[in-house]
Amino acid sequence: MKILGIDPGYAIVGFGVIESQNGRYRPLDYGAITTPAKAEFADRLEIIYDRLSELLTLHMPEAISLEQLFYVSNAKTVIGVAEARGVILLACKKHRVPVFEYTPLQVKQAVTGYGKAEKAQVQEMTRKLLCLKSVPKPDDTADALAMAICHGQAAGSAFRRRLLEGAKH
Amino acid sequence: MKILGIDPGYAIVGFGVIESQNGRYRPLDYGAITTPAKAEFADRLEIIYDRLSELLTLHMPEAISLEQLFYVSNAKTVIGVAEARGVILLACKKHRVPVFEYTPLQVKQAVTGYGKAEKAQVQEMTRKLLCLKSVPKPDDTADALAMAICHGQAAGSAFRRRLLEGAKH
Repeated sequence: MKILGIDPGYAIVGFGVIESQNGRYRPLDYGAITTPAKAEFADRLEIIYDRLSELLTLHMPEAISLEQLFYVSNAKTVIGVAEARGVILLACKKHRVPVFEYTPLQVKQAVTGYGKAEKAQVQEMTRKLLCLKSVPKPDDTADALAMAICHGQAAGSAFRRRLLEGAKH
Repeated sequence: MKILGIDPGYAIVGFGVIESQNGRYRPLDYGAITTPAKAEFADRLEIIYDRLSELLTLHMPEAISLEQLFYVSNAKTVIGVAEARGVILLACKKHRVPVFEYTPLQVKQAVTGYGKAEKAQVQEMTRKLLCLKSVPKPDDTADALAMAICHGQAAGSAFRRRLLEGAKH
């Protein structure tokens, strides 16, 4: 299953495309969409929408794993991040790719097995799971890859659960 | 000058198109884009984007007047409203229509001359300025028309200021 993980933002949108199969993960493409700080806000949204649409056309992922946004997360920037997130949701919708949302806690839990893991631990585990030589930069990219793994785990366990339930009946 | 006022939201997006000339206003079209509460959030965003795009194609406004969103405004719904607002900004950008943003205080000031006016006073003054028989419903529609008038006032006074400044030099 090809999964696109996205770490939303208006200055930097981290992305990571992975192939997930039976609990094994392979990185296909990763990076960040960046927008110029001096640009008008609507221009920044358009860059995000257009670049993400290109990625969706290029990779045709079967699922998107997107970080949930909380009101408490960052008071100053939350509105701008939410506006960018709206545009990201729209791009995924327009490409008819289902979006799955996870909290930072769920991502940590899925990647390291421990919900209170440090950022560095999550990044190192992400690196190992994807057999990468170093942790991808910027952090937004590493976070997006961790998001993608999180959905791989969740989808995998749901799949296994369905198999087991099927076996029971 | 044809102005489209928008009151952003994810359940209801109020809109109002007016013709503004020399401090006089004429309503051209107004109403609300509504999205089903039971629909997936991304579907609601798509409805807003598509319906608004239709309105932009139909009316070809020269300016959009959009309400500014504040972190304090409504803690529970602010993220959803901001996500919808991002999609609204994108639609306007894709149609190459400039967006002007105003605070509720600026709208009240522009419509009634008093920044602390009650909602009912703003609605009644909006009705009078547009020579309407009754206050448009829902409130989101009335608010959107007030937004449009606000930009008409602001653009009008900027225009007059430029004229005066031109006369001085």
